Amino acid sequence: MNLTPAYSNGYHNQQQQQPQGMSQRDRVRRGTRARSRELRDNFGSGGNFGGLRVSEPNKQQQQGVPSTDFDMAYFHTYAHVDIHEEMIKDRVRTESYRVAIMQHQSSIAGKVVVDIGCGTGILSIFCAQAGAKRVYAVDASDIAVQANEVVKANNLSETIIILHGQPYLLLKMIVLQDVNIDGEVDVIISEWMGYMLLYESIPGSVITARDCWLKPGGLILPSSATLYMAPITHSNGYSECIDFWRNVYGIDMSAMLPLAKQCAFEEPSVETIVGENVLTWPHVVKHVDCHTVMHHELESVTTNYKFKSMMRAPLHGFAFWSDVEFCGPTLAPTNNQAPSLLINNLPVEGQQRKKQANPNEALVLSTAPEDPPTHWQQNVLYFYEPIELEQDQLIEGCVNYDYAQFVSLHSYNTIGGRR
Amino acid sequence: MNLTPAYSNGYHNQQQQQPQGMSQRDRVRRGTRARSRELRDNFGSGGNFGGLRVSEPNKQQQQGVPSTDFDMAYFHTYAHVDIHEEMIKDRVRTESYRVAIMQHQSSIAGKVVVDIGCGTGILSIFCAQAGAKRVYAVDASDIAVQANEVVKANNLSETIIILHGQPYLLLKMIVLQDVNIDGEVDVIISEWMGYMLLYESIPGSVITARDCWLKPGGLILPSSATLYMAPITHSNGYSECIDFWRNVYGIDMSAMLPLAKQCAFEEPSVETIVGENVLTWPHVVKHVDCHTVMHHELESVTTNYKFKSMMRAPLHGFAFWSDVEFCGPTLAPTNNQAPSLLINNLPVEGQQRKKQANPNEALVLSTAPEDPPTHWQQNVLYFYEPIELEQDQLIEGCVNYDYAQFVSLHSYNTIGGRR
Repeated sequence: MNLTPAYSNGYHNQQQQQPQGMSQRDRVRRGTRARSRELRDNFGSGGNFGGLRVSEPNKQQQQGVPSTDFDMAYFHTYAHVDIHEEMIKDRVRTESYRVAIMQHQSSIAGKVVVDIGCGTGILSIFCAQAGAKRVYAVDASDIAVQANEVVKANNLSETIIILHGQPYLLLKMIVLQDVNIDGEVDVIISEWMGYMLLYESIPGSVITARDCWLKPGGLILPSSATLYMAPITHSNGYSECIDFWRNVYGIDMSAMLPLAKQCAFEEPSVETIVGENVLTWPHVVKHVDCHTVMHHELESVTTNYKFKSMMRAPLHGFAFWSDVEFCGPTLAPTNNQAPSLLINNLPVEGQQRKKQANPNEALVLSTAPEDPPTHWQQNVLYFYEPIELEQDQLIEGCVNYDYAQFVSLHSYNTIGGRR
Repeated sequence: MNLTPAYSNGYHNQQQQQPQGMSQRDRVRRGTRARSRELRDNFGSGGNFGGLRVSEPNKQQQQGVPSTDFDMAYFHTYAHVDIHEEMIKDRVRTESYRVAIMQHQSSIAGKVVVDIGCGTGILSIFCAQAGAKRVYAVDASDIAVQANEVVKANNLSETIIILHGQPYLLLKMIVLQDVNIDGEVDVIISEWMGYMLLYESIPGSVITARDCWLKPGGLILPSSATLYMAPITHSNGYSECIDFWRNVYGIDMSAMLPLAKQCAFEEPSVETIVGENVLTWPHVVKHVDCHTVMHHELESVTTNYKFKSMMRAPLHGFAFWSDVEFCGPTLAPTNNQAPSLLINNLPVEGQQRKKQANPNEALVLSTAPEDPPTHWQQNVLYFYEPIELEQDQLIEGCVNYDYAQFVSLHSYNTIGGRR
């Protein structure tokens, strides 16, 4: 998609590029990351294993048909290797986690950490480098077998225990079987964010782990997450998926428009927008405090919004993006602590956020269009028809996004404005 | 992936680019084209409908929950709209079909055409523009509902009959029920090509349609298809997916190498290579004459190859690509005709092909690295370790690719060469 926005709000001007190190390569049979991560993070609906500590695999490999557990794991993991490669190569993502872990080294050194959805184990290794006494690294997918190999090769098997299975089963195992947690868990770390922030099954596992294992006052990284939306003007994007059908190699395929519009209106696309597309400050759709969020809050989001356009421009729809913060327990209240005074600086759902409320310089990993690009890009819902907005015109409405149905519903109307 | 090949064989130098009009946009829940096309072309394993002629849909639309068949079709088709958009926007692909249809106008005008896997119906409309008396456009996916709308909007309902379902059921229907074919079919057209040429279920439907419907001497577009392979030197590609794991943010993740290598060796990636990556003339892995090919030939390909490198360079693996030709029946023998003299100019499996054997200027749609880019790109299998090839060194071996298992097996060795 060519991005040549015709309008500018004057406060964003960074051009988006392919994130450094990201690959154009794809496997024939893999799905997009959204689907693949859903499989990877299959905590909610049953993995291949009920839960087991990864033990010494049989390393014998045969060319051809897999015959050993180790070989089977190789095959099962096929669809996942390039997913993990892609995520790790997203330097904004991975470096943010590394820096966050080092910033909180005093809370990690000598402590017990749980890494939920550990993948290849890289975040667990960062925690070990920060001095963690013990890291329990949990993943339901077969990538856990690989993580165990990586840990062994780095002589970290004494520190990092790879657990292959679902957290709720692992809980029983850790308590009852061959793994003994010396005490309760001091730190939970997880990279759980998906498209539209919550389009993954893994955040629920973080809640489970928090409620079962985390000590009062424990650290959760990230500590909070916020989903934003903002009205955008994006003629090229709209044209690419909607107007395209009006003249297809000289054929009028306008009969495709109702379906194309319905898809673009109800199902978010994953694409890169730039600051110039954004018409005003973003609105906080959902703020998730990882210390207090409950399972039912992850099923859908609903928000009432009200925007005032900063300029005269055609409004094509809404972009969504998110950020996560890596605050210590003193900034973000735990489920055992009263909210601190600083809570008022956190994003408030239903309100606009004009700048980062970040008085203590907590690290933020952002997927906003004005920030360095990530593999998440942004998500866009397009209106059926563009709305010609006047400067200062209000647009208000309601949007609901259902993560199980992948479908959004919204209504809106416009008020006022000046020519 | 950055493509800066260090070696050149001196006969390819065209830089590959994103095909014109191709979008960076993606839907949150869609898979890659490979998977989505597999769903779209779900002729072999049962679609949503056993087979029906698309009739007037109930156009009433309600915001929210789908309630009518038409609305349900809208929802079912979600994952497909952007797939069709992507394919149509591949100008190399779509323009090739349009030109081929116009080149064969004398065989199409006044004749009966069947379009297998018609999608949005664009090829059927091209055939109608070429003067076809009747086009039966078949698709198992719900996109057929849309195709019918497009046809109606273009006042072509008298010419193009959209059939929604599986060909083998439609056959019975056409013969026994409400659709009467006046005579037998003169032309079969289909865009059925997938990754590694045959990674789709739709080619089998072309065979079924041919054997049931096509008149002796009838036209099939494309008339033939050829899968090629060639040894490549591609340090950057190998490094991106293999060497990457040796140092990941300072961590030695070499323990990932066995899995990464196995994946890269057995499962083709989809990526763009350039002529400079290719070490010698390609080898014909599989030649499919659409007039004679049988179902069992589509399940897997096996070939013995022998290459002589044109230069000294590290050999990283093999690239695969394909082309299809749009020859008339006089060039390509039908299942009812003896092979013509020109058959000897067609690609021969197991042999190298130094240039296009195309004496009659038959149109070719090619996905070769030296040709304009398409959405298919190329497919690559990487070796476990690069092989330092000398100039004129022979490499020979055998490769098997199983389309059901998505897995390749190969063996190889090198002979001779000069420093």
